[in-house]
Amino acid sequence: MPVLVMKFGGTSVATLDRIRRAAKRVGVEVAKGYDVIVIVSAMSGKTNELVGWVGETSPMYDAREYDAVVSSGENVTAGLMALTLQEMDVPARSWQGWQVPVMTTSAHASARIEDIPPANIMAKFADGMKVAVVAGFQGVSPEGRITTLGRGGSDTTAVAFAAAFKAERCDIYTDVDGVYTTDPRVESKARKLDKISFEEMLELASLGAKVLQTRSVELAMRYKVKLRVLSSFEEQSDDAGTLVCDEEEIMESNVVAGVAFSRDEAKMTLVSVADRPGIAAAIFTALSEGGVNVDMIVQNIAEEGRTDMTWSCPVDQVKHADVAMKKAAADGVINYDELIADEGVAKVSVVGIGMRSHTGVAAKMFQVLSNEGINIKVITTSEIKISVLIDRKYMELAVQALHDAFGLDKAA
Amino acid sequence: MPVLVMKFGGTSVATLDRIRRAAKRVGVEVAKGYDVIVIVSAMSGKTNELVGWVGETSPMYDAREYDAVVSSGENVTAGLMALTLQEMDVPARSWQGWQVPVMTTSAHASARIEDIPPANIMAKFADGMKVAVVAGFQGVSPEGRITTLGRGGSDTTAVAFAAAFKAERCDIYTDVDGVYTTDPRVESKARKLDKISFEEMLELASLGAKVLQTRSVELAMRYKVKLRVLSSFEEQSDDAGTLVCDEEEIMESNVVAGVAFSRDEAKMTLVSVADRPGIAAAIFTALSEGGVNVDMIVQNIAEEGRTDMTWSCPVDQVKHADVAMKKAAADGVINYDELIADEGVAKVSVVGIGMRSHTGVAAKMFQVLSNEGINIKVITTSEIKISVLIDRKYMELAVQALHDAFGLDKAA
Repeated sequence: MPVLVMKFGGTSVATLDRIRRAAKRVGVEVAKGYDVIVIVSAMSGKTNELVGWVGETSPMYDAREYDAVVSSGENVTAGLMALTLQEMDVPARSWQGWQVPVMTTSAHASARIEDIPPANIMAKFADGMKVAVVAGFQGVSPEGRITTLGRGGSDTTAVAFAAAFKAERCDIYTDVDGVYTTDPRVESKARKLDKISFEEMLELASLGAKVLQTRSVELAMRYKVKLRVLSSFEEQSDDAGTLVCDEEEIMESNVVAGVAFSRDEAKMTLVSVADRPGIAAAIFTALSEGGVNVDMIVQNIAEEGRTDMTWSCPVDQVKHADVAMKKAAADGVINYDELIADEGVAKVSVVGIGMRSHTGVAAKMFQVLSNEGINIKVITTSEIKISVLIDRKYMELAVQALHDAFGLDKAA
Repeated sequence: MPVLVMKFGGTSVATLDRIRRAAKRVGVEVAKGYDVIVIVSAMSGKTNELVGWVGETSPMYDAREYDAVVSSGENVTAGLMALTLQEMDVPARSWQGWQVPVMTTSAHASARIEDIPPANIMAKFADGMKVAVVAGFQGVSPEGRITTLGRGGSDTTAVAFAAAFKAERCDIYTDVDGVYTTDPRVESKARKLDKISFEEMLELASLGAKVLQTRSVELAMRYKVKLRVLSSFEEQSDDAGTLVCDEEEIMESNVVAGVAFSRDEAKMTLVSVADRPGIAAAIFTALSEGGVNVDMIVQNIAEEGRTDMTWSCPVDQVKHADVAMKKAAADGVINYDELIADEGVAKVSVVGIGMRSHTGVAAKMFQVLSNEGINIKVITTSEIKISVLIDRKYMELAVQALHDAFGLDKAA
């Protein structure tokens, strides 16, 4: 039998009623002849509650215990989903990560899946079981301890299962009905995309479009897993939602696929750093060890042996960055005059594989922002993406203007 | 190092504050030089919530999924307790049942512990770990699925660990400060016992004194585990609470140790059963298969090949008994005129190992009840217990009169 993976996020299993609705969707696919692997998240709110308890108990917690605690929410949903399917006369059982086993690294709280041997579940499918309900987000380390994959990790669990079981498709059921050209709450003309390439989805995911966990998209791209994002709250046809796929499968597309943004960014500048080979490595190693997720990086031209180093990071990590730089200076690793933080910036990006073959996208983007009187503070580019840092108060305006200028409200 | 087992029930770990208080108690024992195994229940209310969800999802649930769901509460507490101890600089880690492993039978929802290999935890103690926090109530079946031991099963987990690790003592921390001569809510003169024998505790537990799960007392008796019941809400001295121990360790005791009662009983009589060898087996097999927990049994003298069979059971099982008897009659296994149920009875028992050497306890009990004008409906006795079934409305009166008559408010 062909295998289908279906993943239901926290809002899709938030209540017993919603679990029943999700189970009905599963039943539809079973009736089509699929052996189905269902990946479930914790009921929405549960994981946050557990994370809160851990943080309150132990601010600098042992990540192994964090994992043991926060993984429990998924176990509950998996069991309830299996029971709900059984009530519908669909042969089903639940599996916890260690039972499959979902073998991961020992990097607790952010473990990576290393292997999912399909033998145990396939044997049950051969015995007549139609649905394996698997607790998402969790696995087991070589030491036999429970690991978790980081927030949103159930998406990664789903794609990894689709790869391991050579599934026909991996359907991600969530509270939105697909991937949009931008957030409809910011631009009412935002349009749902029928298809999007892995590369574009990857950029959008990493830019803060929280539809899919970045790692799940990377994994899908590497293993050529057909990934579909669709709503668990609507009646579904076979071509509902957005298909994330190889760009070869996308016949026509706009040059720009979407406009992404990230609201709570900070721009930090380390002023007058003693410039020497290895100084960037010294700074960013210190920031990384201090728990700062650096995004954009700009280095000014050095003058008289001194330079300025600028980066962006989430605004709530500004304090961490300050501590890390002071420590590095105290340790004699770096030497600087001051660290300036601008906590009022946002990042806006345009993303599209069409940029590879179309020139002038950057120029057009800068012109659009200039026409609106928006000053650009930092620019970075990749092959299929241009990102700018601007004052936060202009973020909505920039998104709307760019969405309009690149014609995203109309299909290609 | 000597090993101590400490078990904290649901009310003792109901909040993060209470977990901290419990952890401090653990720290006191670690400071005395013990390697400690802590058994934890779910935070109070959590297991009931999970059981409710399972029942709502699937009234005739698959017990394997029930176990997968309801075992999750203990995992949360175990992780939080380990983190709390770590915050106090006590080296600790959590263990889920399958990690130890706590090997059980496959009788899901009421599994029995078969083996607890101590090697894994002992190796960690040898490495310098001071506390192993183990999720109570759960284990793993030979098939690698999660099992639970039945409600109150964490007591059994605790005693089983104490036996497997040859612990010096097993301390059960709960919301009462020990075992009383009777329920203080019914008889204000009830007195806490310093010591009680396993045999007496077993009778009291099975008679509805809900301090300890019956199976945990059986296990403690078989493996000679010193069991102490004490309050987690009071400052504790070394001789706090009640020690449940071999009767040889109890120097002096009252003839009667306590008065137990069970409020919601029913008396059922199967009228005019065709009497033949094997009829009792036929009736009580049918009742057992129908899920009826029969307690007392009385058979009248047979006349003309017919007899009446009387038993008691929890009042909420009267319907099950009725169904089971009708089915047995329809199957031709038994033959009777009618089944009468008296749903307004309660059971009152006096328990004491002193009965073995003192005669006249039964006579005194019956006289006391007679003096109060209480009619006795059924009587059963064991070596150290006499139980009577009486009208429920006289239950409190009977308990108080017996407590008084046997001088239980005064120590031996």
